[in-house]
Amino acid sequence: MQNRVTKLLGIKYPIIQGGMVYIGKPPLSTAVSEAGGLGTIAAGGLTLEQFAQEIDRAKELTKNPFGANIPLVIENVPEYIRIAIEKQVPVVILSAGKPDKYIPALKGNGIKVMQVVPNVSMARKVEMAGVDAVIAEGFEGGGHMGHDELTTMVLIPQVVDAVKIPVIAAGGIADTRGFVAAMALGAEGVQLGTAFAASLESPAHENFKNAIYQADDKATVVTGRSMGMLVRDIKNDFTAQVLELERKGASREELLEFIGTGRAPRALLDGDMTGGSAMSGQIAGMIAGPKSVKEIIDGMVGGAEGILDKLQMLRKI
Amino acid sequence: MQNRVTKLLGIKYPIIQGGMVYIGKPPLSTAVSEAGGLGTIAAGGLTLEQFAQEIDRAKELTKNPFGANIPLVIENVPEYIRIAIEKQVPVVILSAGKPDKYIPALKGNGIKVMQVVPNVSMARKVEMAGVDAVIAEGFEGGGHMGHDELTTMVLIPQVVDAVKIPVIAAGGIADTRGFVAAMALGAEGVQLGTAFAASLESPAHENFKNAIYQADDKATVVTGRSMGMLVRDIKNDFTAQVLELERKGASREELLEFIGTGRAPRALLDGDMTGGSAMSGQIAGMIAGPKSVKEIIDGMVGGAEGILDKLQMLRKI
Repeated sequence: MQNRVTKLLGIKYPIIQGGMVYIGKPPLSTAVSEAGGLGTIAAGGLTLEQFAQEIDRAKELTKNPFGANIPLVIENVPEYIRIAIEKQVPVVILSAGKPDKYIPALKGNGIKVMQVVPNVSMARKVEMAGVDAVIAEGFEGGGHMGHDELTTMVLIPQVVDAVKIPVIAAGGIADTRGFVAAMALGAEGVQLGTAFAASLESPAHENFKNAIYQADDKATVVTGRSMGMLVRDIKNDFTAQVLELERKGASREELLEFIGTGRAPRALLDGDMTGGSAMSGQIAGMIAGPKSVKEIIDGMVGGAEGILDKLQMLRKI
Repeated sequence: MQNRVTKLLGIKYPIIQGGMVYIGKPPLSTAVSEAGGLGTIAAGGLTLEQFAQEIDRAKELTKNPFGANIPLVIENVPEYIRIAIEKQVPVVILSAGKPDKYIPALKGNGIKVMQVVPNVSMARKVEMAGVDAVIAEGFEGGGHMGHDELTTMVLIPQVVDAVKIPVIAAGGIADTRGFVAAMALGAEGVQLGTAFAASLESPAHENFKNAIYQADDKATVVTGRSMGMLVRDIKNDFTAQVLELERKGASREELLEFIGTGRAPRALLDGDMTGGSAMSGQIAGMIAGPKSVKEIIDGMVGGAEGILDKLQMLRKI
């Protein structure tokens, strides 16, 4: 299975682990790289020192390529970029901002650069800026998202038509059906968040993982629309309170004060599934229990053959 | 290309035209049936007399099967059902309510019954009630939708896993890539709305069709969330005003008074793209110009082979 994405990143399968704060790091990220995908370390939630340490840990735990996710909205972005360059992280994945000023240094040092995009115009802009591939993320994905609310089904073919670089699909993908569907839409790879967050190797709290296993199709909700800061979480007291404040017309300041800081680690690391922000994609309803990263990736790749056999009936007769 | 959906409905290709008010009727619906899909007549927007006339017209214009869409929220539902039975419409597609009390009479008269569902629990309920197939419609679709906001990518596999009857995918599908992707997700057919609304045979106003052709990926928006009446339209003055009222905390009564009646025909039939409700799916951004219904269907079916050839690389080596 060789295509532009596997060749660009030097990986076996075009499967990437999404940049999840507090969760995207070894041993999860290294398990993904060891299983033939691209594991990634999320800079968000890590101090500069922790970020450097996790990169060192990743290098000890796998000889395979891995990446670092750096959202362009966190503090000290240039410092995270500098560390990624110094430590020769093979791939840097940017998001939520203009990548232009970082690309020459990254690419000049042999680092592959990808960027997460929510729409066609941003895909075009980052291609012009020189990124090697885009990760187009649909509305069904978990955690923070753009406010365009474009779903994976409509976003992928439109981005594929708009750019020449490879497009990786993110949002709503957790099994071999989603993998093959994304590739049919024209993607050359997929990125998974929730499925890996719920895996055996994920450092997330058991309460969070259990909430994913128990989730049905309607378990998640988007908050923050009224202030243009959309986040998809598993529904709980916290999301209900935010939505009630929004319904009442609370100002951005009131909302930010109520939300405060530390809601994500409260759910993801401390297991507070009542008051924490339990970021998850809509696909949670399809994740029924714990699996290892290798089981997830092998199932995704290995199942493609059976789907293709079924799809043969679509060939013109 | 034979599967459970083509056999159930007696059609050549598992492609269904969605039930669009004011648009779903001859000559559009009959063009779809003539091209090998299932054209449908939308009861919504038609008086009982008009509904009966359009069925008669459909029978004159095609010998192929066609359907009637009857949303269970319109007035006089039993009368529309009675007409469909009297006139022996081959297929009835229900939506937005419990189908139980209508199913015995419909199926007893040899009519195939399908229902549009927005989530897994509704799919299970209508299967129990005896419908022959479900049409699972994702958040990216145009017009009225459920409030669960489940996208096609996550909805289809979860519904497929939950029911034994065939699942037809709706929302975000307009070309062969979407068709093959939906079938990879486990659907056994697809339903298209926006693509057919913008077709040459569509009775929609030219202004509306042109707005679809000119739409980019971000051209649509959902209004009505604050009152649980979600509608996806092309963005215009009307949607901006509704969203502004919602942002200010307007009551349901205030919103319904502002919206009034006739907003949909104002856009769809009269071509008022400023003050009308121009219902459209997110996929509008991919529809670049006028095509005949036959071109759309032939392209969708004929393109599958090329995609399957590309996907062969996913087979395990």
